[in-house]
Amino acid sequence: MYEQKIREVMHGVKNKKINVDEAVKKLKFMPFEDIGFAKIDHHRALRRGFPEVVFCQNKTTEQVVAIVKKLAAINSNILATRATEEMFNEVKKHIRNAQYNKISRAIIIQNQKNKIKKNGKILVLSAGTSDMPVAEEAAVVAEAMGSRVERVYDVGVAGLHRLLSSKEKLEEANALIIVAGMDGVLPSVVSGLFGKPIIAVPTSVGYGASFKGIAPLLTMLNSCSPGVVVVNIDNGFGAGYFASMINK
Amino acid sequence: MYEQKIREVMHGVKNKKINVDEAVKKLKFMPFEDIGFAKIDHHRALRRGFPEVVFCQNKTTEQVVAIVKKLAAINSNILATRATEEMFNEVKKHIRNAQYNKISRAIIIQNQKNKIKKNGKILVLSAGTSDMPVAEEAAVVAEAMGSRVERVYDVGVAGLHRLLSSKEKLEEANALIIVAGMDGVLPSVVSGLFGKPIIAVPTSVGYGASFKGIAPLLTMLNSCSPGVVVVNIDNGFGAGYFASMINK
Amino acid sequence: MYEQKIREVMHGVKNKKINVDEAVKKLKFMPFEDIGFAKIDHHRALRRGFPEVVFCQNKTTEQVVAIVKKLAAINSNILATRATEEMFNEVKKHIRNAQYNKISRAIIIQNQKNKIKKNGKILVLSAGTSDMPVAEEAAVVAEAMGSRVERVYDVGVAGLHRLLSSKEKLEEANALIIVAGMDGVLPSVVSGLFGKPIIAVPTSVGYGASFKGIAPLLTMLNSCSPGVVVVNIDNGFGAGYFASMINK
Amino acid sequence: MYEQKIREVMHGVKNKKINVDEAVKKLKFMPFEDIGFAKIDHHRALRRGFPEVVFCQNKTTEQVVAIVKKLAAINSNILATRATEEMFNEVKKHIRNAQYNKISRAIIIQNQKNKIKKNGKILVLSAGTSDMPVAEEAAVVAEAMGSRVERVYDVGVAGLHRLLSSKEKLEEANALIIVAGMDGVLPSVVSGLFGKPIIAVPTSVGYGASFKGIAPLLTMLNSCSPGVVVVNIDNGFGAGYFASMINK
Amino acid sequence: MYEQKIREVMHGVKNKKINVDEAVKKLKFMPFEDIGFAKIDHHRALRRGFPEVVFCQNKTTEQVVAIVKKLAAINSNILATRATEEMFNEVKKHIRNAQYNKISRAIIIQNQKNKIKKNGKILVLSAGTSDMPVAEEAAVVAEAMGSRVERVYDVGVAGLHRLLSSKEKLEEANALIIVAGMDGVLPSVVSGLFGKPIIAVPTSVGYGASFKGIAPLLTMLNSCSPGVVVVNIDNGFGAGYFASMINK
Amino acid sequence: MYEQKIREVMHGVKNKKINVDEAVKKLKFMPFEDIGFAKIDHHRALRRGFPEVVFCQNKTTEQVVAIVKKLAAINSNILATRATEEMFNEVKKHIRNAQYNKISRAIIIQNQKNKIKKNGKILVLSAGTSDMPVAEEAAVVAEAMGSRVERVYDVGVAGLHRLLSSKEKLEEANALIIVAGMDGVLPSVVSGLFGKPIIAVPTSVGYGASFKGIAPLLTMLNSCSPGVVVVNIDNGFGAGYFASMINK
Amino acid sequence: MYEQKIREVMHGVKNKKINVDEAVKKLKFMPFEDIGFAKIDHHRALRRGFPEVVFCQNKTTEQVVAIVKKLAAINSNILATRATEEMFNEVKKHIRNAQYNKISRAIIIQNQKNKIKKNGKILVLSAGTSDMPVAEEAAVVAEAMGSRVERVYDVGVAGLHRLLSSKEKLEEANALIIVAGMDGVLPSVVSGLFGKPIIAVPTSVGYGASFKGIAPLLTMLNSCSPGVVVVNIDNGFGAGYFASMINK
Amino acid sequence: MYEQKIREVMHGVKNKKINVDEAVKKLKFMPFEDIGFAKIDHHRALRRGFPEVVFCQNKTTEQVVAIVKKLAAINSNILATRATEEMFNEVKKHIRNAQYNKISRAIIIQNQKNKIKKNGKILVLSAGTSDMPVAEEAAVVAEAMGSRVERVYDVGVAGLHRLLSSKEKLEEANALIIVAGMDGVLPSVVSGLFGKPIIAVPTSVGYGASFKGIAPLLTMLNSCSPGVVVVNIDNGFGAGYFASMINK
Repeated sequence: MYEQKIREVMHGVKNKKINVDEAVKKLKFMPFEDIGFAKIDHHRALRRGFPEVVFCQNKTTEQVVAIVKKLAAINSNILATRATEEMFNEVKKHIRNAQYNKISRAIIIQNQKNKIKKNGKILVLSAGTSDMPVAEEAAVVAEAMGSRVERVYDVGVAGLHRLLSSKEKLEEANALIIVAGMDGVLPSVVSGLFGKPIIAVPTSVGYGASFKGIAPLLTMLNSCSPGVVVVNIDNGFGAGYFASMINK
Repeated sequence: MYEQKIREVMHGVKNKKINVDEAVKKLKFMPFEDIGFAKIDHHRALRRGFPEVVFCQNKTTEQVVAIVKKLAAINSNILATRATEEMFNEVKKHIRNAQYNKISRAIIIQNQKNKIKKNGKILVLSAGTSDMPVAEEAAVVAEAMGSRVERVYDVGVAGLHRLLSSKEKLEEANALIIVAGMDGVLPSVVSGLFGKPIIAVPTSVGYGASFKGIAPLLTMLNSCSPGVVVVNIDNGFGAGYFASMINK
Repeated sequence: MYEQKIREVMHGVKNKKINVDEAVKKLKFMPFEDIGFAKIDHHRALRRGFPEVVFCQNKTTEQVVAIVKKLAAINSNILATRATEEMFNEVKKHIRNAQYNKISRAIIIQNQKNKIKKNGKILVLSAGTSDMPVAEEAAVVAEAMGSRVERVYDVGVAGLHRLLSSKEKLEEANALIIVAGMDGVLPSVVSGLFGKPIIAVPTSVGYGASFKGIAPLLTMLNSCSPGVVVVNIDNGFGAGYFASMINK
Repeated sequence: MYEQKIREVMHGVKNKKINVDEAVKKLKFMPFEDIGFAKIDHHRALRRGFPEVVFCQNKTTEQVVAIVKKLAAINSNILATRATEEMFNEVKKHIRNAQYNKISRAIIIQNQKNKIKKNGKILVLSAGTSDMPVAEEAAVVAEAMGSRVERVYDVGVAGLHRLLSSKEKLEEANALIIVAGMDGVLPSVVSGLFGKPIIAVPTSVGYGASFKGIAPLLTMLNSCSPGVVVVNIDNGFGAGYFASMINK
Repeated sequence: MYEQKIREVMHGVKNKKINVDEAVKKLKFMPFEDIGFAKIDHHRALRRGFPEVVFCQNKTTEQVVAIVKKLAAINSNILATRATEEMFNEVKKHIRNAQYNKISRAIIIQNQKNKIKKNGKILVLSAGTSDMPVAEEAAVVAEAMGSRVERVYDVGVAGLHRLLSSKEKLEEANALIIVAGMDGVLPSVVSGLFGKPIIAVPTSVGYGASFKGIAPLLTMLNSCSPGVVVVNIDNGFGAGYFASMINK
Repeated sequence: MYEQKIREVMHGVKNKKINVDEAVKKLKFMPFEDIGFAKIDHHRALRRGFPEVVFCQNKTTEQVVAIVKKLAAINSNILATRATEEMFNEVKKHIRNAQYNKISRAIIIQNQKNKIKKNGKILVLSAGTSDMPVAEEAAVVAEAMGSRVERVYDVGVAGLHRLLSSKEKLEEANALIIVAGMDGVLPSVVSGLFGKPIIAVPTSVGYGASFKGIAPLLTMLNSCSPGVVVVNIDNGFGAGYFASMINK
Repeated sequence: MYEQKIREVMHGVKNKKINVDEAVKKLKFMPFEDIGFAKIDHHRALRRGFPEVVFCQNKTTEQVVAIVKKLAAINSNILATRATEEMFNEVKKHIRNAQYNKISRAIIIQNQKNKIKKNGKILVLSAGTSDMPVAEEAAVVAEAMGSRVERVYDVGVAGLHRLLSSKEKLEEANALIIVAGMDGVLPSVVSGLFGKPIIAVPTSVGYGASFKGIAPLLTMLNSCSPGVVVVNIDNGFGAGYFASMINK
Repeated sequence: MYEQKIREVMHGVKNKKINVDEAVKKLKFMPFEDIGFAKIDHHRALRRGFPEVVFCQNKTTEQVVAIVKKLAAINSNILATRATEEMFNEVKKHIRNAQYNKISRAIIIQNQKNKIKKNGKILVLSAGTSDMPVAEEAAVVAEAMGSRVERVYDVGVAGLHRLLSSKEKLEEANALIIVAGMDGVLPSVVSGLFGKPIIAVPTSVGYGASFKGIAPLLTMLNSCSPGVVVVNIDNGFGAGYFASMINK
């Protein structure tokens, strides 16, 4: 649309129907300038087969279905996070190949004509069983964005030997996503042992002075071992997304 | 510069030196699109005689002098806030008509050819003597932006009768800026008595559980009386600026 | 009533039934002094057709109905915010022309004999879909107070081009109300692009370290771009009210 | 019991059955030393007719009934705060003259033989309707402890004239209990106008940045007007208790 | 002045120079209505010999001297808190009988013609040596307001026996001021042992997680033993003032 | 398993099937090095008869049953904390001698062949009735780990004499666990009176400014009396566990 | 003194100079009851050779010297913490054998006639170089109280192998004191690897979101590995004291 | 050393000097197991030419010189952050080719024999002039670790057009480091416009409710635009380090 408008102005100038001053004025105030290169990004995303992401929390089932249908119509890969089972059931009625990851509460729609190419490996680690929904959200998002993902769950400090047993997986990965609540020490420990880039995700699981994730968030931000960056509390999506961006 | 570039492209099209496709491509990626309408704002600001504002805190004297000289060269009205006396002395050497408001630590440079037209009245109230630097910053900024300003200082709750004595000034003003630390109740009280739009400024003055301005900030945000909006702690500049924007 | 009492005392003095000393004493302790000018404000509000506002949260349906009936009896325009659907249904039984705005949960009663005159335009922007209840509350309140209101919803940072598409609406408005949760960056961005007075409303929508609205509240208070003032978290009412006060 | 033991030892010494060294040893380690003067306080409390107070929150109905029955058996005046209606119904089955104050959720049992003598007057003020449960708890407690209590509710900043209409009640009271949520400014304002000792009670009523009572708590602690002391958020009991202690 | 004006109007009415309508109008808008009863309080304060209080923190020596001289000229008793030694030296030059309490940093000026009558006893307790400046401020303020004051310092939990040694002083006092930093447990303990009204003052002395007084502030607000009220951190003045208000 | 592997390598070297370089390489990267000494701890724990602990919060009943069955199969003593009654009922179906402590919500399984030997005495004190679930969790954990435990509940500041009545129990104990909410003063007071090591447990019981346990947590961390250490809010398990570790 | 008084009363009773009623009354109100067993604790402390501890922060050099001289006169072992070098120099003038530990800023005075007997071993670990003053304070205090102390400093997560190299020292110790700032993960890691009781000390060293020690404090309180207790930020003294109490 | 020890044991087994049981025991408890693979990381770091990093804050000049000399002796590239000019001057005396970056306060020592190979491009953006020290630290660290770095400073929201002018640099970079204080909105805005991985660094620059960097930290953590990760306040080092890890 934007390009179309520029084109019209140009033809006007070429055909001497519009003089240069008028043309300059028209273009100067055209409200769509930015859409131009924004669209380019958008196109590039589509070319790379990246999915469109729908954040379902605080949306109604009707809203989710409407958005997903609209995206599916243009052959997108779609990832809907924080989706209830009810949302999935409604979506499934319209889009046969929709799949649901129960733990992470994600709906995944893989378009056959628009397959994302597979990238290097990302490892998702979680400290405890109760961190799994967040860890799984990170894993599902990274997969949907083309990363090969391995999971090593429940490797908290008390099970440090389990972590060390997974040494080879750790060495192979391009990036680590580490999900932990309570004291949130796992990223610091792993960073001290292995030289990998770590995306740390604090979780709100815990009680007492973990303050809904503030304690592990602060632990992770203050990590004494370099190579650790942090996303928001419970933000598995953000971690999986970022990990895939840097995964080549 | 941006306009110049568009103009060149246009002439190229007009003269058939550039074809339309190439022209569209050139314009589409031109990095200056936004400057266009940004400049308009800038121009409008200059037409209205609004001063350029330099925030001196965290800048060296050298940096401040350099910026002020550059602005003065293009005949701007200039307001430099949070300026030390040393900064002023250096500026004064280059710009003869520079003035210094000691309490608010502001340098004011009024360009004779570019006088700002005077608007309606704004009233600046402060609760205590120690709130004066912030109040005065608000007042000086509002004046520099063309508002007529009256000051009523030291009218805390213990001196409520002094507030009521200023009733006429309160009635005349288009907007009130109310500066208060400690319990920060003055905006709520004034708002309950008079129906004026109030911009409340919490100050960091106080001790104990005023927590460097958090206590009055919360009081003001929670005002039970409508018509109160809030700016950052000690942000006299923001209050004076906003008050002048709504003052007609 | 107050005036009546003064008048009686005066006639007593005039008719020498009361001596001056007694009269002074009577007036000095009369508890109604302040009501005098408070009433004036009240009257002026009514003359301007401003609605009486009832804040329904923490009130029972019975209390709300009772208050609304009493106000309707004196021909007021009425705005009841944070009202449940049940409250509206009960009110509707007594006041036929009561209307309900479901998203903002507001009851609006427009008195035909006491129409508010229409003022200039206010633009309400929201960053996300989930910010809509707060945005709509602001819009409804501003309308009830006589502002013409336009809404531009769901223009977060990821949809910046949609914001720019609304440039004309932005230019026309006397003031902007910007409602945003999570990172709360929209007011800063809009303020950097357009020179309009902005009333920023943080919302409690979000998760993790948004801390029920503290994160966007702090972002807005710290806005690097002047011309932004802030109201309490989720306080759509306060933003709409203030915007209308400054809208001429 | 304690006195009895001392007496026995004394008689042993007097009758030379116990030598002095043994007596000293016996007394030195007697575990009840402190009960002695604690009992005195207890006795004094009973003599003054002060009620025994039972804090029902976090207790089961069975526990409350058991405690109240035990106290009633020794003819105490009893005040049970934060009691549910169910608790009251069970208590009522055993103690015929038990009464229930629904708003403050207090059970009051006035023993006929042990009437508390009436003291001076305390005034309980509340800023809003939703502060009433806390205000009423304060009032009921103060009454149960022998104070004559007057209530002036819903006199927030927007209704300051209502406050001034109650000037005589304010002048008569020995102490004021002021209950307020949100901005919590009422104690500061009243303290600025009247020279009475004020016990301020912040309430958790509110939304947004009132943070469950932190905002009014800070306002009250930072009151610029002397003569204001503060109790815990929603602690009507503590305010009523303290007010009665200082009410003579 | 206010009375004078009313009187003039009255005489105008009496002498038929002003008609009733004009008189009503004159009185209705007279900006000084509130001063009337405010003055009464003021007068009462003077009659009781209460000192005028000057809070010196955040004031210059010049400002302090100017205010004190003005008050001294009208024969007031004066109490200047948070005064530096330099301030005192300057004041001393003008007012010969000025005295300085070094620990509490208070200047006391006792006017011979306007002696305050002595009231009942207040006991000031402090937990540690470093709480003394705050405790002494409370004591000096209470004395200046006519209370007889006894001090029992350094009676923290580790020295509980010292507290018990002072039992008689505790029993005699009308009210206790208890000053404590760090864990702030002293008010709870004393309240559990003695049935006296307690004004608790948290101090900012301490380190680590005492957070400049927040820890003892919270301890005191949450005291499980009734009869404890709290003032701001380090607010010895407020405690001494309130204690004297309730001391008869 | 680890030892087995080392042994195989050794035999290979001994039998000249593996040369030294290969052997070194094999051992160097063996991922189980740490398991070695971790296992020793594990073995020691089993030898001492310490129970395996299952933290049930945030686990499903199915998960809990599965884990408990697996542990029971290898003759462990088992302690399952934060278990619902439903969890217990399911466990009971499989493990006949399972017992349930309702107040602390703990499942205890004592293996007859693997009895833990009894250690010295630990005293668990609680300030209020509502602190009992946390106190009982501490007590049950300490018992399961071989400590003899005595309980003295409901000995808050208001009942200090009850504390003193338990002086002998206090003197006998090797360590004290003190559980308290609200003001959290009990550990400070007990520490001032008795020279015992104290493990303080803040509880989230309370209202207002106790902030879900932050107030007692800070009080305990700031205890002016040495010999007090602190665990997380409501962490009865941690206190019982640590107390047993130091109890000999 | 207390015993002396009891004895006098006893002799009075024995000699019939005081009758029993009078004697009971005398004893009942004697304010020193508690001193009795408090003194016992004191004596026991002296018998065990524990030092008297003087906390020098917030004290003047004169005060410190006076206290230390008084204690030295009764042959005490003395430990003065947070002492400046100036304080030490003054103390040294009076007490020849006084020693100064510069890093921990402690003055140690070991009385030759009153030697403390040596107990088991305590290990003090610190994460970083900048944690040393706090770690050394803990070590010095533990030594002064009779513990044999070993130090392993600078063993943060990045130097985990150094920690493992000290395995034998860790196995020998009765208790570990672990001092760490920033992320504070060391106690969790050590607790996961070794089954020792750990007293964790957060330090205020750090920057950004370590918030003067809050980050490591929360990490430690939320440790997922049991056996960790926590003392106040920078409270090396408390850790050393507690460790010695449990060290046998 | 570790390998040497294993080798010795192996030869002992091979030569039948040690039997298998003894060999297993020797290896099982060898405290250096972990050093093995830790060393590998270390070696790899050296092979890649990564510098050794010395964090100078909280270290004495002597300590810094000693560490740097030791590292220089083994031909390392060295980066010393947060170094004072005095530290640099001392280091310079010993290491001739040491360089100092004054703004970021970093000492850089580039070893000629151990040159790091150059990687892709990283772009460092800062919002304001006062964010430069942190931005420059990030840039210097990234350069020292082999990244080509471009800087675009002072591109806050008010200068959004300057940001857009740098579009090409933004498109070329592998990763963006964005440094911002106050409202911290820049990462959200840039992320909304460009699809690059962003490492956001909040700075403590600002006043009022920016709370030493908490405000921008929260803004960044809550970024509504995916692809943003966060490091600690003022942690330029961490951002530069992480950016280089993911830069290939």
